[in-house]
Amino acid sequence: MKNLMDIYTRKKKDIAAIEKELEESVYTDHSMLRETSMHLLKAGGKRIRPVFVLLSGEFGNYQLQTMKRVAVPLELIHMASLVHDDVIDDANTRRGQLTVRSKWDNRIAMFTGDYIFAKALGVITQIPKPAVHQIMSKAIVEMSIGEMEQIRFFFHSEQSIRDYLLRIRRKTALLIAISCQLGAIASDAPDWICNKLYSFGYNAGMAFQIRDDILDLIGTEKQIGKPPGSDVKQGNITIPVLLAMQDPALKPFILSELERIHQLDGQTDVSRFLDAIRSSKGIDQAEALSQKYIDKAIAALDSLPQTQAKKDLTEIAHFFGNRSY
Amino acid sequence: MKNLMDIYTRKKKDIAAIEKELEESVYTDHSMLRETSMHLLKAGGKRIRPVFVLLSGEFGNYQLQTMKRVAVPLELIHMASLVHDDVIDDANTRRGQLTVRSKWDNRIAMFTGDYIFAKALGVITQIPKPAVHQIMSKAIVEMSIGEMEQIRFFFHSEQSIRDYLLRIRRKTALLIAISCQLGAIASDAPDWICNKLYSFGYNAGMAFQIRDDILDLIGTEKQIGKPPGSDVKQGNITIPVLLAMQDPALKPFILSELERIHQLDGQTDVSRFLDAIRSSKGIDQAEALSQKYIDKAIAALDSLPQTQAKKDLTEIAHFFGNRSY
Repeated sequence: MKNLMDIYTRKKKDIAAIEKELEESVYTDHSMLRETSMHLLKAGGKRIRPVFVLLSGEFGNYQLQTMKRVAVPLELIHMASLVHDDVIDDANTRRGQLTVRSKWDNRIAMFTGDYIFAKALGVITQIPKPAVHQIMSKAIVEMSIGEMEQIRFFFHSEQSIRDYLLRIRRKTALLIAISCQLGAIASDAPDWICNKLYSFGYNAGMAFQIRDDILDLIGTEKQIGKPPGSDVKQGNITIPVLLAMQDPALKPFILSELERIHQLDGQTDVSRFLDAIRSSKGIDQAEALSQKYIDKAIAALDSLPQTQAKKDLTEIAHFFGNRSY
Repeated sequence: MKNLMDIYTRKKKDIAAIEKELEESVYTDHSMLRETSMHLLKAGGKRIRPVFVLLSGEFGNYQLQTMKRVAVPLELIHMASLVHDDVIDDANTRRGQLTVRSKWDNRIAMFTGDYIFAKALGVITQIPKPAVHQIMSKAIVEMSIGEMEQIRFFFHSEQSIRDYLLRIRRKTALLIAISCQLGAIASDAPDWICNKLYSFGYNAGMAFQIRDDILDLIGTEKQIGKPPGSDVKQGNITIPVLLAMQDPALKPFILSELERIHQLDGQTDVSRFLDAIRSSKGIDQAEALSQKYIDKAIAALDSLPQTQAKKDLTEIAHFFGNRSY
């Protein structure tokens, strides 16, 4: 399997142009907002949404200028949601960097998110296609519902697999889906291609989040940029845990661990919990489900013209399912 | 002086239509978000921004449908900013009602704000005029900077009057200014009228916020729907306080009180502080400044056609300067 960076190489120049535009888009004379926003930007990230916009745009009349206007607000919305998530999660690190709430404080993180979101709106309104506005705003509403759902299900051990899937659909998959769809729409690709790319992005996004949730349980701090077990400490019960609980021999111990971690507000060692999940079938089953989503994502590309963009999207989907970072 | 409600009577039907649209716009199947949003809506408010949209719209081709599409997102943006403000301020009541953060919690309040903001974006994108989008998004960016400024100046006793004025300009006056401007733009009023209405709204908004800040110091809990002195308890130093500190005989006591309140994180009786401000010239001087803004607001209407809308706007500006609620 190729490394993500190899796949990115072909679009290196355009990704750099988006990176520059991202920096310019959050620029402000207000020194604190400039610092917090740049801190967020510089903390990196895979820029998956911009890359998907660029690759999807190749199925139509590819214009970098148009691509930038779509990619930048999508990445900004993602960043704004991350900084608010970090407040909810009391997260101290993300991608190995201090979070805004940890380097400054929760209030500053909240308003940094509001500011970046407002800036995203400013870029969105420059896109001359009302259809793009509608698709973005609907996805943003769903994302905010997904964030609220996440709180509601914290330490909720009786939730179903369906509850989990609905939540990650809203929280992650929809924004990735529309990144592909909008890249294609903005470059005037045919409708059927836009729809196929939406489906690709949706399934790839589901796989991406499931892999993320697996890595939180089996990864090392170096790989994932935060201590493993961060999810359960916040009360976020993910699919490997739900699957592990289907084993009657394991369920009582997992439940008692969840109860204990909840009572201690996550301020406790969770290594026994992690060991239990790792030794269960939950990880393998979650990996199999992630693989199913990747297969679906790739199948959605079937009828698309055989282009380099299609090859790259396929490679990225494979990466999503197997990545360790 | 007329009561605000008398002024509103003429537009009662259209205000009711906007109220209904506001409720519909935040509707969701998600029960908690529906509850928190409706709680916010039902907690009331003066609906000043929608009323300004309606009255300004009368200077052009007034269409209720068009007015609704402009008024609803402006009120939603205002509501979203209030619910985030309440998180920052640790506010328990607003307008005599429990705040979302107090009835639920801070995390739920943050995501409720995000949700309402996202819904506002959905309504904005239905407005077919790109100029409206640009004006709204710029104002929202300025508002978020204003919110951050407010944090930065908490308990900052050396701030200047200019710091204060810049802050309330961003926090309050700009959104009111664009409510007037956009009501006129959306109904295709001539450019010069749109600009005059912007100036009216800006100055009326400055007066409104100064009056708000005075009321927090001299009003009763019944009048203002929250305990008096709430501002200083949060560290928000307002113009009557800054003006009172210009008296060398009062300054040391005010500074020591600010220091004491800061050290106790606002969890203390502030009646001696309030007494000091009330007995100073700060209140009268702030009222005089507020009056100056009202005069400017009304002067901005001078050259506008003599219509009922102009009379109503004038009445509201007078109300802003003298209101006790």
